[in-house]
Amino acid sequence: MTSYTAPAKDIQFTLETVCDWSSINALPAFEEATHDLMTAVIEEAAKLSANVIAPLNRIGDLEGSKLVDGTVKTPAGFKEAYRQYVDGGWNGLSFNPEWGGQGLPFSLALAVQETWTAANMAFSLCPMLTQGAIEALDHHGSDDLKAIYLEKLVSGEWTGTMNLTEPQAGSDVGALKTRAEPNGDGSWKISGQKIFITWGDHEMTENIVHLVLARTPGAPSGSKGISMFVVPKFLVNEDGSLGKRNDVKCVSLEHKLGIHASPTCVLQFGDEGGAIGWMVGDENRGMRNMFTMMNHARVNVGLQGVAIAERAYQQALSYARERVQSADLMQPNKGGVPIIRHADVRRMLMTMKASTEAVRALAYYNAAAVDRAHGCESDEDRAAAQGLADLLTPVTKAYATDLGVEVTSLAIQVYGGMGYIEETGVAQHFRDARIAPIYEGTNGIQAMDLVGRKLSMAGGAHWRNLFQNIRDFVADLPGSGDLGAIAPYLEDGIEALQNAAVWLSGNDASEARDTAGGAAPFLRMFGAVTGAWLLAVEAVAASKRLEDDAEDAAFLTAKIKTARFFAEQILPPATALLGPITRGSEMLYALDEEDFSA
Amino acid sequence: MTSYTAPAKDIQFTLETVCDWSSINALPAFEEATHDLMTAVIEEAAKLSANVIAPLNRIGDLEGSKLVDGTVKTPAGFKEAYRQYVDGGWNGLSFNPEWGGQGLPFSLALAVQETWTAANMAFSLCPMLTQGAIEALDHHGSDDLKAIYLEKLVSGEWTGTMNLTEPQAGSDVGALKTRAEPNGDGSWKISGQKIFITWGDHEMTENIVHLVLARTPGAPSGSKGISMFVVPKFLVNEDGSLGKRNDVKCVSLEHKLGIHASPTCVLQFGDEGGAIGWMVGDENRGMRNMFTMMNHARVNVGLQGVAIAERAYQQALSYARERVQSADLMQPNKGGVPIIRHADVRRMLMTMKASTEAVRALAYYNAAAVDRAHGCESDEDRAAAQGLADLLTPVTKAYATDLGVEVTSLAIQVYGGMGYIEETGVAQHFRDARIAPIYEGTNGIQAMDLVGRKLSMAGGAHWRNLFQNIRDFVADLPGSGDLGAIAPYLEDGIEALQNAAVWLSGNDASEARDTAGGAAPFLRMFGAVTGAWLLAVEAVAASKRLEDDAEDAAFLTAKIKTARFFAEQILPPATALLGPITRGSEMLYALDEEDFSA
Repeated sequence: MTSYTAPAKDIQFTLETVCDWSSINALPAFEEATHDLMTAVIEEAAKLSANVIAPLNRIGDLEGSKLVDGTVKTPAGFKEAYRQYVDGGWNGLSFNPEWGGQGLPFSLALAVQETWTAANMAFSLCPMLTQGAIEALDHHGSDDLKAIYLEKLVSGEWTGTMNLTEPQAGSDVGALKTRAEPNGDGSWKISGQKIFITWGDHEMTENIVHLVLARTPGAPSGSKGISMFVVPKFLVNEDGSLGKRNDVKCVSLEHKLGIHASPTCVLQFGDEGGAIGWMVGDENRGMRNMFTMMNHARVNVGLQGVAIAERAYQQALSYARERVQSADLMQPNKGGVPIIRHADVRRMLMTMKASTEAVRALAYYNAAAVDRAHGCESDEDRAAAQGLADLLTPVTKAYATDLGVEVTSLAIQVYGGMGYIEETGVAQHFRDARIAPIYEGTNGIQAMDLVGRKLSMAGGAHWRNLFQNIRDFVADLPGSGDLGAIAPYLEDGIEALQNAAVWLSGNDASEARDTAGGAAPFLRMFGAVTGAWLLAVEAVAASKRLEDDAEDAAFLTAKIKTARFFAEQILPPATALLGPITRGSEMLYALDEEDFSA
Repeated sequence: MTSYTAPAKDIQFTLETVCDWSSINALPAFEEATHDLMTAVIEEAAKLSANVIAPLNRIGDLEGSKLVDGTVKTPAGFKEAYRQYVDGGWNGLSFNPEWGGQGLPFSLALAVQETWTAANMAFSLCPMLTQGAIEALDHHGSDDLKAIYLEKLVSGEWTGTMNLTEPQAGSDVGALKTRAEPNGDGSWKISGQKIFITWGDHEMTENIVHLVLARTPGAPSGSKGISMFVVPKFLVNEDGSLGKRNDVKCVSLEHKLGIHASPTCVLQFGDEGGAIGWMVGDENRGMRNMFTMMNHARVNVGLQGVAIAERAYQQALSYARERVQSADLMQPNKGGVPIIRHADVRRMLMTMKASTEAVRALAYYNAAAVDRAHGCESDEDRAAAQGLADLLTPVTKAYATDLGVEVTSLAIQVYGGMGYIEETGVAQHFRDARIAPIYEGTNGIQAMDLVGRKLSMAGGAHWRNLFQNIRDFVADLPGSGDLGAIAPYLEDGIEALQNAAVWLSGNDASEARDTAGGAAPFLRMFGAVTGAWLLAVEAVAASKRLEDDAEDAAFLTAKIKTARFFAEQILPPATALLGPITRGSEMLYALDEEDFSA
């Protein structure tokens, strides 16, 4: 059994420095989110995640969720753990107080979510999907729908799902075929098949609220003819009690590489006459409404990369401290030492630590921008924050999840042969992590979103503002010491990133393939430069606290060294992607399709 | 079900150009290895691998090998497939004709082995281990031992295993405790427990020949007190028939992330009085004798990275050609196209293709050096070839297996959500591939071998000769066209590699941590530069053939474009590792051990 301890100190430090917590707390919307409250919430989440949710991680992997007599059975202990999560009031942390939420910042909710996900990624997906459903209903639902569903969803008494994918409609959501026909009483008859529906069925709660994308009769083809519907597993009577079973069934579960405890369902709607649903928002605006919500969801998935990396790092670190093998190079005749003393193991551990902290900083910074976009008082500030959040979202999603896979792979390597043995549990993280670069828009889709939509928003103002902030920060770094050592690397990085952005922005529609061809390495460089910058922001803050003789000198010193390690060791290969990004697509299309195989 | 077709054309082309087949065939030792024979062997291997071995890959993953009543049961079809492999005479391809082998070059045997491994990695491990046992016995065994075992091992009628690892002795083999006590009749009594013994038991053959490292009474501690023993599963009577069961038992099998069909055994020696064994080579020379053989084995494991990458590439390519999703950016109103038309998917496929061909070239080139080390006529040529082979071996092992994991991960990404579903079979490659960076010396150990032993051999002559060859090659490249585009990248790469090697070579014992800290990125840069160079060697050869109006213009053009893609896209981030390599170990040791956790 491997244990998990939430890195409360680093989580709090990141919220304080990268998110500038006091400035979030100063916003009228978040005046209750004091520093004391923030730290207390993290401490409590740390307990539930470590004591209740983490111990179910391996059980969940071994048992998996199973389809039994038409209903999904979750692994032993999941239902009870979910109950504790709901009873603790955790589900409503960042939601509208009107529906029982606590109205706390998204950045804090994200930090809390990190602890659930690191403890048990498969478990954490259930509340994550519920959050998506809450947002969709809160933003776009009618007052009637809100009154029926939101309180139960916010409390977590019911869970929610997102139904987009169909066999022929994956990345191309617009190709979906599920139909919705009016019943004449304001409700709709939904029929079709949806696949890859996370937590699409289970017995942890009495009801499940499906949000379903479908086409109404005569709707335009493609993504402009899609509407959103709410389709509950059990219909809800006027008094709020549950009525009859709706015509939606889980017909099979996927056998997956990882996240075995999370049931990935094929849902059949309308096999017995039509599932009853109600439209959410306007007709044919389903894709657009889904997108408002997907941005949140994408930050949440990026966070999964952070969380699984943290979990894998903790496990590898624990093994590296215990496992004795080979002598220290500096004391070759003194017998075996714990492998953490070996330089190559240190390189792996530092890479894991620096990568994890960099993407934590990135995801939290992104979430803080979301908070400012909601809470800032001037239109201008809100728009700037929203632009920053929009820009960063694909980077958070893709870069953090890619690093999640890389860090979990390093954890296996630290374990050596024992890492390949399932009983040690470290391979599970590698298997679990591999889904995150795929779902909620593949990382390739994220890269296209970044270069195709986000760079050009507001005429490029968002990235130019961000990059100028980074330049100003670099200019203010001292000329020596650890912070001084960071400066030239960050300077090279932001210079290359700016050049790449200018090049990509200069491409017109006839050069769309060049832009698309450079998208993935551009996103990687973007992630590495912003990650290095945010670690350096933390290092500067740590340095100031050290000057003020703060407690935790070892922790603060580690923050500074970790930032320097990232700048010196991890950033340079990413900076070197400027050439690959701007090389154009000639070599990508140099081979005819049939010539890819020899 | 996914199929596999051996890339016969690329395999043959690589043997012709990178290995310079005609010069190998010109060596007296290999005068029978004509070009016609070489191509015929590859064609035949392609048939057996595709028709017999590949179809068992998924069955093997699902069923796994199982321990039933003390004996390992292999998955359905494995025993029969192994029989066909033996009946075809494949096992003895490169071995001594004195024992029934065909005495063909190792490079050809490696090419053939690629097809078995790509078809079914778990299956292929069994003959691979047998090869190791053959070499150990052929090089170090007494005439008696050779007479008893070699013919049966060379034919494949019996299989072999290598028994090094014990719970406390993994990377540090010298820490092993298994004991050997003389019986007084020339035989020894072996007792102890070995773990991670690949194909340590099975029912595919009547006997299994274990090579076991153990300590004799009074042996020095550490790696200088280890001797090698042969311990057959069944004792062999004087007439060659099988006698009584030896005291070695498989007591359990590991549950692993991948290669489920390959039984990874815990072997117990001597629970009932002592397993009977015979010493191979001199007392206390077991480690050294094992190492002669491990170099071969390491090239073979590197090849596993090549093979699993090829398999995953073929599967991803097939899916990318079939899966229709989203419109072509250049024809946005024309509906969905196969995803191979999208730039980001092309980037992934080209990355997979270029990476696979680069490590194929590297592994084969390494094997050709082994062939020259055995077959060249002058001592000087043999020594130079052996030096090159020694230098390249850790690079082949580690770089190729790292890319194997990366390419199989990309294959999942090309599949999107379907890649995460076990039924598609693509996740199996990712799981299978993950062992190769670990066993036969972790990739960290390989990097230490490269910087700690190989760079300094012959006063650095081996790497200086290789690097000079690459420099001369670059100087001869034309100034324009695809080959001209490759030149500056390769020039930057070899310059950086040389600087790194000089820096590492300049460190003394007091700077051992700096050397060790830079080892892993140095190995990666070494792999990328030599891979880029060998692809460019192929591109030059392809270019000459095109000038001569050779057939297969499309294949030859693809070779050139692929080499250019690697140089432009994959090499630059590796070249940028010069800084990280030479930064020293200060940041690796900046944190106290307890400060790695927050």
